[in-house]
Amino acid sequence: MTNELNVCLTPALIPLFNVEDYVVVIIDIFRATSSICYGIENGAEAIIPVSEVEECLAYQDKFAHYLLAAERNGEVVSGFDFGNSPFSYTKEKVAGKTIVLTTTNGTHALQRSIQAKKIIIGSFLNLTSVCNWLKTQDNNVLLVCAGWKNNFNLEDTLFAGAVVEQLKTTGFILDDPAIAANDLFQIGKNDISAYLKKTSHSERLKALGIEADIEFCLQVDLTTAIPILEGEKLIKLI
Amino acid sequence: MTNELNVCLTPALIPLFNVEDYVVVIIDIFRATSSICYGIENGAEAIIPVSEVEECLAYQDKFAHYLLAAERNGEVVSGFDFGNSPFSYTKEKVAGKTIVLTTTNGTHALQRSIQAKKIIIGSFLNLTSVCNWLKTQDNNVLLVCAGWKNNFNLEDTLFAGAVVEQLKTTGFILDDPAIAANDLFQIGKNDISAYLKKTSHSERLKALGIEADIEFCLQVDLTTAIPILEGEKLIKLI
Repeated sequence: MTNELNVCLTPALIPLFNVEDYVVVIIDIFRATSSICYGIENGAEAIIPVSEVEECLAYQDKFAHYLLAAERNGEVVSGFDFGNSPFSYTKEKVAGKTIVLTTTNGTHALQRSIQAKKIIIGSFLNLTSVCNWLKTQDNNVLLVCAGWKNNFNLEDTLFAGAVVEQLKTTGFILDDPAIAANDLFQIGKNDISAYLKKTSHSERLKALGIEADIEFCLQVDLTTAIPILEGEKLIKLI
Repeated sequence: MTNELNVCLTPALIPLFNVEDYVVVIIDIFRATSSICYGIENGAEAIIPVSEVEECLAYQDKFAHYLLAAERNGEVVSGFDFGNSPFSYTKEKVAGKTIVLTTTNGTHALQRSIQAKKIIIGSFLNLTSVCNWLKTQDNNVLLVCAGWKNNFNLEDTLFAGAVVEQLKTTGFILDDPAIAANDLFQIGKNDISAYLKKTSHSERLKALGIEADIEFCLQVDLTTAIPILEGEKLIKLI
């Protein structure tokens, strides 16, 4: 049987898919899924994604040793251990730790995909590792772009196109969003950073002074760990 | 003040925009908005878009001389005068007539945009005419792709990219979907028909035996008339 390789361009479009028929990859390049991949690679025991800052605080009442990470509109919420910056997810800071993370878009995408067969986390950091694992699954694959406030964004779509690039010759049927994402990747692939500089989101992140984060998140195959959702926790699959 | 040029990739995303702040262009290339542009060019007095076949029939009870056009999943509904094929909208058939039209995706996009400042109809047939008119408006512009069953499709997005191409040097601020649509247009513009042959929708339409319709709908600047919504009717603006 031939499997589908579909791209869901924003979380608002998830209801169009029967997610229970898919292995889902959650994509939030700037910066949630990049930081999650880096944290799991660096030995974090688990990362728990939540949608509200209040939920994050509730974990601290129950588990005082958990680290709390919260970001809203690109900034660390006051009083929290850290936010979404991948530089907060180094070995020194996260090895052996459980982190409760709330983000603007990534958590939203993940929670709307909760009925999927499996949910893994993708970013440029673990691109080839994710693709190699997907090739072994013999399943429909849905690449869910977290986007920006439920709308399309270029960086998540470009990453989806990079996954399509590695899988398209392996027998999947592509939908129109997958074709478009892959074509956009063709345009941007030689210098993803330069390509993304023209986006509005890039301007917004630059205004927040996190250009170093952006460059970090665009490194391809820096890591191999694949975070997978087990219950409420993202843990290391491989 | 600088105006926005935004692209809404599917009707499901219209709630993300304050449509009342925009002049909206409805895009349903295969085939509703192409046929509407051709019909208005050829002297149709008005075209009334409705979402349900039953609404279409209700008009016939009130106005027996109206022509009825209904398409579902790409085929003429049995008992109707015609469907979405542009070849049904020739001078001989539509001059001086009012047509009630129900379509799968185009009407849906139009009705969800109903609060807009103005709503006009775009297609490759009247591309430059639409762009020239938009340049005179000094307003935010939202290009609404009808898509396919609330998901993204390539042909509508490519047309949005063609509009962006003509407007992007005139001072508009582009959002990420507008940038992406324009980049896809760069890939496809030299042979739009060949580019679209790789889409799933193209396969579906080919199976319906309407390849001649597709080629017709991809003709650039065959017409100059711009249909605009006045009350419930699409009439000739210019």
